[in-house]
Amino acid sequence: MKKLINRTEDVLAESLDGFATAHADIVTLGTDRKFVQRRSLKPGKVALISGGGSGHEPLHAGFVGHGMLDAACPGQVFTSPTPDQMLAAAQAVDTGGGVLFIVKNYEGDVMNFAMASEMAADMAQGPVATIVTDDDVAVETSTFSTGRRGVAGTMIVERLVGAAAEQGRDLDALAAYGKVVNARTRSMGVALTSCTVPAAGKPTFALADDEMEMGVGIHGEPGRRRVKLATADAIAEEMMGAILGDLSPKAGQQVLLLVNGFGGTPSMELYLMCNAARRILAGHKLLAARCLVGPYVTSLEMAGCSLTVSLVEDADLALWDSPVHTAALRWGV
Amino acid sequence: MKKLINRTEDVLAESLDGFATAHADIVTLGTDRKFVQRRSLKPGKVALISGGGSGHEPLHAGFVGHGMLDAACPGQVFTSPTPDQMLAAAQAVDTGGGVLFIVKNYEGDVMNFAMASEMAADMAQGPVATIVTDDDVAVETSTFSTGRRGVAGTMIVERLVGAAAEQGRDLDALAAYGKVVNARTRSMGVALTSCTVPAAGKPTFALADDEMEMGVGIHGEPGRRRVKLATADAIAEEMMGAILGDLSPKAGQQVLLLVNGFGGTPSMELYLMCNAARRILAGHKLLAARCLVGPYVTSLEMAGCSLTVSLVEDADLALWDSPVHTAALRWGV
Repeated sequence: MKKLINRTEDVLAESLDGFATAHADIVTLGTDRKFVQRRSLKPGKVALISGGGSGHEPLHAGFVGHGMLDAACPGQVFTSPTPDQMLAAAQAVDTGGGVLFIVKNYEGDVMNFAMASEMAADMAQGPVATIVTDDDVAVETSTFSTGRRGVAGTMIVERLVGAAAEQGRDLDALAAYGKVVNARTRSMGVALTSCTVPAAGKPTFALADDEMEMGVGIHGEPGRRRVKLATADAIAEEMMGAILGDLSPKAGQQVLLLVNGFGGTPSMELYLMCNAARRILAGHKLLAARCLVGPYVTSLEMAGCSLTVSLVEDADLALWDSPVHTAALRWGV
Repeated sequence: MKKLINRTEDVLAESLDGFATAHADIVTLGTDRKFVQRRSLKPGKVALISGGGSGHEPLHAGFVGHGMLDAACPGQVFTSPTPDQMLAAAQAVDTGGGVLFIVKNYEGDVMNFAMASEMAADMAQGPVATIVTDDDVAVETSTFSTGRRGVAGTMIVERLVGAAAEQGRDLDALAAYGKVVNARTRSMGVALTSCTVPAAGKPTFALADDEMEMGVGIHGEPGRRRVKLATADAIAEEMMGAILGDLSPKAGQQVLLLVNGFGGTPSMELYLMCNAARRILAGHKLLAARCLVGPYVTSLEMAGCSLTVSLVEDADLALWDSPVHTAALRWGV
């Protein structure tokens, strides 16, 4: 295992300390590093909290700040955070508007966020609602999930709902809007190489030199099938075909396109995939009104990418374009 | 070779097309893809132009836009762009204020930008000045350079000089300021793995499973020595020792810290390195007034990172914080 680390047991703590000091203008660390929270809370605003296993950075801590999340709970690498982390985060950032949990559909995360909701109710902590994201069209059930997995589309939910929260919408409205965004957002990924979890010390899976994992999950878990490496155009065709087949968009529809790198993919390849994806969208008479290209929902150093398409209306685009100030996504501020 | 590409000879063109369409609000592509230029030019402003081999993205095209560059000339992967690209860019973006070339100290780049300057003079194109960056403390001469190499510190020069240009400073003042920034900026890198140039089809160099290349260049060219993999703390100590030994900063000095990923390094590791670097700075009574952490000056999918320290005063920080709107660096807009 080749990594820029000290002791494997300290990777998360040292990384969080580095993150919190590098972005001290935006975030602070909760006690015992249970969560990363927005430095300036907005009284009365619904508090958005997400979290999950680490190793997907910038998701979620890199999206804490104005216009997105109020707190993120980091678990160990590819391991769900605990309910007490989520409860502590809720107690820290709820300023009276209630709390909305944004949860990727993985069994550990769903269970622990549900438990945190119950604990919050027991303690009369204020209302808590939950959105579960399940944008991955690759598989219907998987190693770690019942139903589709929540993957890169989660950041689109976090951004759009975060922008709406900033404008003062209430908890019920935000939970309903988040479900709508999730339902209009679909993703699929491909891996060219595995990643290595520091505590494991060896690659999660093995691919031959001429193989790829089509439909891979963000922990390197299996997708649809293992096949021979194909051209970028063929890969984009298969992924976009699955996504658009599921979304059935109308001609003329505006979309957000996210070309997401898994951590080990050169920028040149991501933009080349963006080019291929846009051509396919144009072939379906769909307009990529906004494109986001980069490593946003990663799997440590895995090579590969995912494509995400989110159907949007003008009102969604206005939310997308409103000011956001986080470590990983920033404009208008 | 595992890459998300179609034909190797089309990688650059398809990637540039993807980049230009994804960021059509910021940039346009020049004829024959000779350069990427800022969409909205500012009449009378000094035009900043950089360029170099591709494979280092977002450097340089990702830094074209308000507050940074007016144009970037992309060569093939790790290959200098040609003088006619640079001349065409100068002709396209010079709005009467003259042109400033920002050039990384590699023989091909230096020679071709010098030739472009001569061609511009022959054509009475208007004044052209040049800044050559040479921030890499690892080696005094190298495979492709006479004198120190220009590496990640180049983006700090592009940003600070770009901000000053936006404020209306003239060509002589900007050239002088750029030289000052370059002289106050030092970098050093380490590689854990090689990268693979698409046209070559195989890794540029080979490292054993327990080896790293200390002082590596951004094309994977040799650094100081090949040694056993060390801890992140030990790596940071060696790199910061070389940087600070060269800069000899006074106690209490403010600095910009750039923790740059080479393309295949997980975000967690970069923030862990940031944590280590900040601790070393604090030990020298230096204050990291701003931290930038991410893949900004890459070497395709190479694993590893570089550290850059730039000594700054309040006036430099004001320039740093002023609005910037590029694909890869954006705030205040």
